[in-house]
Amino acid sequence: MSADRPRAAVLGTGAWGTTFAAVLADAGCPVTLWGIADEVCEEINTAHRNTAYLPGVVLPDGVRATTDAAAALAGAKVVAIAIPAQVARSAIAPLADLLEPDAVAASLIKGVELTSHRRMSEVIGEALRLPEERVAVVSGPNLAREIAEHQPTATVVASRSAATADLVAHACANSYFRPYTNSDVVGVELSGAVKNVIAVAVGIAQGTGYGTNTTATVITRGLVEMTRLGLALGADAQTFAGLAGMGDLVATCVSPLSRNHTLGMHMGQGKTLDEAIAATGGTAEGVKTSASVLELARSVGVEMPITEAVVQVLHHGLPIDRLPELLLNRPRKAEGVQATGPF
Amino acid sequence: MSADRPRAAVLGTGAWGTTFAAVLADAGCPVTLWGIADEVCEEINTAHRNTAYLPGVVLPDGVRATTDAAAALAGAKVVAIAIPAQVARSAIAPLADLLEPDAVAASLIKGVELTSHRRMSEVIGEALRLPEERVAVVSGPNLAREIAEHQPTATVVASRSAATADLVAHACANSYFRPYTNSDVVGVELSGAVKNVIAVAVGIAQGTGYGTNTTATVITRGLVEMTRLGLALGADAQTFAGLAGMGDLVATCVSPLSRNHTLGMHMGQGKTLDEAIAATGGTAEGVKTSASVLELARSVGVEMPITEAVVQVLHHGLPIDRLPELLLNRPRKAEGVQATGPF
Repeated sequence: MSADRPRAAVLGTGAWGTTFAAVLADAGCPVTLWGIADEVCEEINTAHRNTAYLPGVVLPDGVRATTDAAAALAGAKVVAIAIPAQVARSAIAPLADLLEPDAVAASLIKGVELTSHRRMSEVIGEALRLPEERVAVVSGPNLAREIAEHQPTATVVASRSAATADLVAHACANSYFRPYTNSDVVGVELSGAVKNVIAVAVGIAQGTGYGTNTTATVITRGLVEMTRLGLALGADAQTFAGLAGMGDLVATCVSPLSRNHTLGMHMGQGKTLDEAIAATGGTAEGVKTSASVLELARSVGVEMPITEAVVQVLHHGLPIDRLPELLLNRPRKAEGVQATGPF
Repeated sequence: MSADRPRAAVLGTGAWGTTFAAVLADAGCPVTLWGIADEVCEEINTAHRNTAYLPGVVLPDGVRATTDAAAALAGAKVVAIAIPAQVARSAIAPLADLLEPDAVAASLIKGVELTSHRRMSEVIGEALRLPEERVAVVSGPNLAREIAEHQPTATVVASRSAATADLVAHACANSYFRPYTNSDVVGVELSGAVKNVIAVAVGIAQGTGYGTNTTATVITRGLVEMTRLGLALGADAQTFAGLAGMGDLVATCVSPLSRNHTLGMHMGQGKTLDEAIAATGGTAEGVKTSASVLELARSVGVEMPITEAVVQVLHHGLPIDRLPELLLNRPRKAEGVQATGPF
């Protein structure tokens, strides 16, 4: 354990929270996981495993878990949060008074809050009463399972404060996990939210039988509409071409492990949304985020035809066989960020 | 057959040449394929099949084939060329005098000529003695097999001349194939060449056992180094974010049908280059193109670490287990086009 690494807490014992705790421990941070399930904490502490979310993975000895938030947060300078987007606010708000006065928060959550359209770093800042300079976002092509197996992985740590980004990057950098810092929080968070929606679209296309040409086209045009929304909201176009933008989008769209992609496949094969959710298991963030992203896009006058098609299919009962017509029949002649159609 | 579609010829009876002839025929063009193998032309004319390259696919009746170049080129206003990059010049140079005086050429070839470092539209222009205004390039996420099955596919038709791009786009636009025009020939052609090199790199990484996080990172940083080379050679950055750039790169890197990807997988699993070529079958353009691209990059002072690693592995015997070290140990802190490392 390196003396210079900060004490850390991770809120949430799902696959990504547990993996990130292992990353922090392997970097040399003393780290405590906070969860709400006694049996999960017990298994982590006694067997160094979280078999429900990371079957077969043995966690470093340094990872401890507790259901006692005060104990987890005591002394923690870095507080990473990995709780599903739509329940994060209510889950963490009661913990605000337990944070160390100089603690910074690191959002591991990808999504947009449905009711408020807030990005997750905004939700965390509000819930924990932290100024944006004390909140960072960690995002990239980061499938938890592969990181838990120590495959070399790069990520982006973004914060308005360079000091906060550096602190979080220093806490998690280890021999298999390489963080790069970035000041464009808006771009990094939008990428992490919208990519789940595009992954649903790719899943739908593949579920209906389309192959690689269509997959690549939806990914490419998905990045274009994501970038267009980001530019309207003040993000940097470069972020979308980077690891948190294109990198995470590609990883999510091609991985058989992505729940958003899997859910889309089930929809493409003709299941109803309820059936697809049941068949997928776990939280597919893209389902709710698609509606939030579309409302956000409309509020700033940005067209997002792929996101709109996903919302129509998931939430308004558009039959799958009407989808090609919706996506293909837009008049369009030139490529680029200004063009609106996916094909 | 639409009266307004131009007569077309396609040089080359491989998978892409044959498929593009079918695309032209389905768009309404009278089209003749030129090949060097009697038995292939015979099968196309009598059985409407090319079983060696497109098993199971039935070609439109309008596709005819001949070994007589003069017959194929007589009356053809659009001459599409789908011949392996390194032999294209010598294969087509003898045909220069057979072209109609107002014919335009459309390159379907992805690669860079090894000896001259010329892009394929330059090779075609030189070999057929055509000014660049009469040469176009067709490139995008276009796996031939899927197009032959009529899956909806988008592509880019680029030419310095808008009239030439429009003519070629008009010739090939049909109900399942949608061309978009672009004036950035350099960007479109570089994308088509370099993507094969990046696909080899992704294959190597997957062959050695790395998963989705690494795949997405190599694709993302591969696009960055491709863009960097393009900017140094006068291309438009937007092209690399489009269907011919990112779209084709993603398609090639994720498709199990890509020979470049397959060849990389074999190398990653420890085969020698000769063994990998034998196991792959067919031409993996990335093998030779990697050396051409690296020389081109060096000539303009651009760093391409992924391309360099591929060249080291393929042509200079770098052991696969030294690859992570080569790619991971570069000092780098900020993302973007200027940064040089893949991780």
